[in-house]
Amino acid sequence: MRYPFRLLLPHIWLTCGTCDAMKKATSKKNALYAQSGGVSAVINASACGVIETAMRQSRHIGKVYAGRDGIVGALTEDLIDVSRESPAVIRALKHTPAGAFGSARFKLKGIEQNRAEYERLIEVFRAHDIGYFFYNGGNDSMDTALKVSQIGEALGYPIICVGVPKTVDNDLPLTDCCPGFGSVAKYIAISTREAALDVASMARTSTKVFVFEVMGRHAGWIAAAAGLAGRKAGEPPHIILFPEIPFDRERFLGKVKRCVAEVGYCVVVVSEGTAYPDGKFLAEAGTRDAFGHAQLGGVGPVVAEMIREAHGYKYHWAVADYLQRSARHIASKVDVEQAYAVGKAAVELAVKGVNAVMPVIVRKSSRPYKWTVGHVPLAEVANREKKVPREYITEDGFGITAACRRYLEPLVAGEAYPPYRDGLPDYVRIKGARVRKRLRTEFKL
Amino acid sequence: MRYPFRLLLPHIWLTCGTCDAMKKATSKKNALYAQSGGVSAVINASACGVIETAMRQSRHIGKVYAGRDGIVGALTEDLIDVSRESPAVIRALKHTPAGAFGSARFKLKGIEQNRAEYERLIEVFRAHDIGYFFYNGGNDSMDTALKVSQIGEALGYPIICVGVPKTVDNDLPLTDCCPGFGSVAKYIAISTREAALDVASMARTSTKVFVFEVMGRHAGWIAAAAGLAGRKAGEPPHIILFPEIPFDRERFLGKVKRCVAEVGYCVVVVSEGTAYPDGKFLAEAGTRDAFGHAQLGGVGPVVAEMIREAHGYKYHWAVADYLQRSARHIASKVDVEQAYAVGKAAVELAVKGVNAVMPVIVRKSSRPYKWTVGHVPLAEVANREKKVPREYITEDGFGITAACRRYLEPLVAGEAYPPYRDGLPDYVRIKGARVRKRLRTEFKL
Repeated sequence: MRYPFRLLLPHIWLTCGTCDAMKKATSKKNALYAQSGGVSAVINASACGVIETAMRQSRHIGKVYAGRDGIVGALTEDLIDVSRESPAVIRALKHTPAGAFGSARFKLKGIEQNRAEYERLIEVFRAHDIGYFFYNGGNDSMDTALKVSQIGEALGYPIICVGVPKTVDNDLPLTDCCPGFGSVAKYIAISTREAALDVASMARTSTKVFVFEVMGRHAGWIAAAAGLAGRKAGEPPHIILFPEIPFDRERFLGKVKRCVAEVGYCVVVVSEGTAYPDGKFLAEAGTRDAFGHAQLGGVGPVVAEMIREAHGYKYHWAVADYLQRSARHIASKVDVEQAYAVGKAAVELAVKGVNAVMPVIVRKSSRPYKWTVGHVPLAEVANREKKVPREYITEDGFGITAACRRYLEPLVAGEAYPPYRDGLPDYVRIKGARVRKRLRTEFKL
Repeated sequence: MRYPFRLLLPHIWLTCGTCDAMKKATSKKNALYAQSGGVSAVINASACGVIETAMRQSRHIGKVYAGRDGIVGALTEDLIDVSRESPAVIRALKHTPAGAFGSARFKLKGIEQNRAEYERLIEVFRAHDIGYFFYNGGNDSMDTALKVSQIGEALGYPIICVGVPKTVDNDLPLTDCCPGFGSVAKYIAISTREAALDVASMARTSTKVFVFEVMGRHAGWIAAAAGLAGRKAGEPPHIILFPEIPFDRERFLGKVKRCVAEVGYCVVVVSEGTAYPDGKFLAEAGTRDAFGHAQLGGVGPVVAEMIREAHGYKYHWAVADYLQRSARHIASKVDVEQAYAVGKAAVELAVKGVNAVMPVIVRKSSRPYKWTVGHVPLAEVANREKKVPREYITEDGFGITAACRRYLEPLVAGEAYPPYRDGLPDYVRIKGARVRKRLRTEFKL
């Protein structure tokens, strides 16, 4: 069959996994793995799942390569020969944060807009006999994966492309949760609990308000996870600011004041994506200097200063930034297992000839937590975002509901401590041996 | 003997522990424990050491009380009856961060300047038959402890006062290290290593510079600890900014540029106390808004913005703030043990009648690490700071030397994981039962 052009549109279910063109690709071919977008504490656990599984599939898969710096490595023919890494190093990826092979913020345009990039990809794939492409990333990356999955027909080179989900933001649709999120959720919940104890200790004579800025530009899942830190009424965090809830300055400041009066202090967790009703980010609304330069801080200091101006409370603020998404030292065990599982499933799907899909986590029950791995068409995932549903946020818009807690709690369960040497986590670095180039052409990004 | 007034001056060795007035105090008396100043991940481990040891000293010590919110509780007769906490709760303090009894930023003035506060303290001590006072804090607190240790003679009430060292800043003199520091050092070194892996993963197409602001307003010990994250030349952190080294904008920006050119990215760790040669903090030099308000950020965003202005690199920054000093989830095992040990030693000294001292950590060897507990007069500790010595900082002022690494490494050794429940550390809260007031007088702070 020929792929109708409308496959470039999202939301179209693809059942092309069994078609003839794809079956050809399941004869023994090499595999290429690439990391994409912002990295996480467990993206390398997915890499480990892909690589270990691929190496066991010797009937279908020859060499396993990885793109250095993700798709950029694929385009520039900068490939890493994964088979030259020791099995111990591959295994250690499971406890090593960030992107061991390098990741990239690089989104392929549509074939019709930039045919040259796709032709180059096929040139590299052909030169290295690549029949399987595993793309490990979030929303944008699944869009790229979808496009790559389509080049087989569009440009006449058979390729099986399977997406491997990864995003700390937890905003991929159709999967119950997304590998990377459970660990950042655990880190944020723990950090909130710990910092809140600090503030509570000293509120009588010192800091009254603590503002903690967390990631999540479009969806408030990470902010929601901070809610796990408290169990009973009055326990911190007292206020969570979600991107899903338009910011109301007066209601917020009123709540802060009541909280300090009643509890003695106030812990605020603010998502970087918190915005005014007109969609303008709070962070953008920060002060400017005399020269008109935008203020330096993120939303955390903006909110802290807003409180000081209104109420005069002494404040502190923290911005975890990359610390939260790289905190492998306190990764969620469930998250590590799921990250590995989706990598493994991706390879198992690919060798069955299933193209253009992404493995997903399917929740079977919350208490006790039971999950399995399913898969969905990339076309249904690409470029769609899953926000925190309104029923997960308390009526006043400042906290999480019991339903949200029920959803989140299993995702932060268990500790998967890395090994330590000299008091620090013993993270691994790959050798990263370069595959000999076969093309004489350069590709400019 | 009478205490000569010059004992109020620092640097005078006190050998009063055996004098008659003090010996009287060693007959069975109640003990009061109080936390002071900024809290830490292990100050409660010291509390556990004090309390467990005091409870075993039934020949000398009757009841064990704690000041609610430190010295504030002592002044306002707001005492917690520690004997009403279960042994399991007391034990759990060892793995619970921040100040379980409440801490305070409250420095007693000299007796000659504010006799009323001392008279009130004695009133409370007398009402509750308190003969032992354990004050758990840093530089300022040891000054207060010294003053309290002197009121026995000055105001005619016998009291044994022993300081228990605590400060994340590690700037107390005469002790090899200070409980609280090892854990923040471990947290900062781990966070630096993790965030640096994140930046390295993506530097080719994304963030080139990461700035990490850490605590330490006067001494750069915490910043130095970040240096443990890297081992070999070129490994992050590439630049550490110490309060001990006057900031040289041009040299710093030059080093950042070379680093990005050579390594591909640059990780900068900046101590909040980093200052220009004229002593002005970098954080103070930040931008102001049109109304003249000081900029909102700390030194981290100031440095990041300075780099962007000069070189245009994409940056990220993080400010750990309270997260670093409350991160009990990744406390150093050595630190927890030392925190407990100084608490225990304080009680053992007190019941021997030794007044006006502070237990210290004495290093016997670095490799293998061997330490023991000694003690020094409070008069030699109070109001003195220990800065990072020049020989611990590389010649260019931007890194740590092998000697510094040798000093720091044992302090971050071992993990002392807290127990977990529902995916989060199971930190304890005390019941905090109030001791019945015996005074009819109120005290206004």
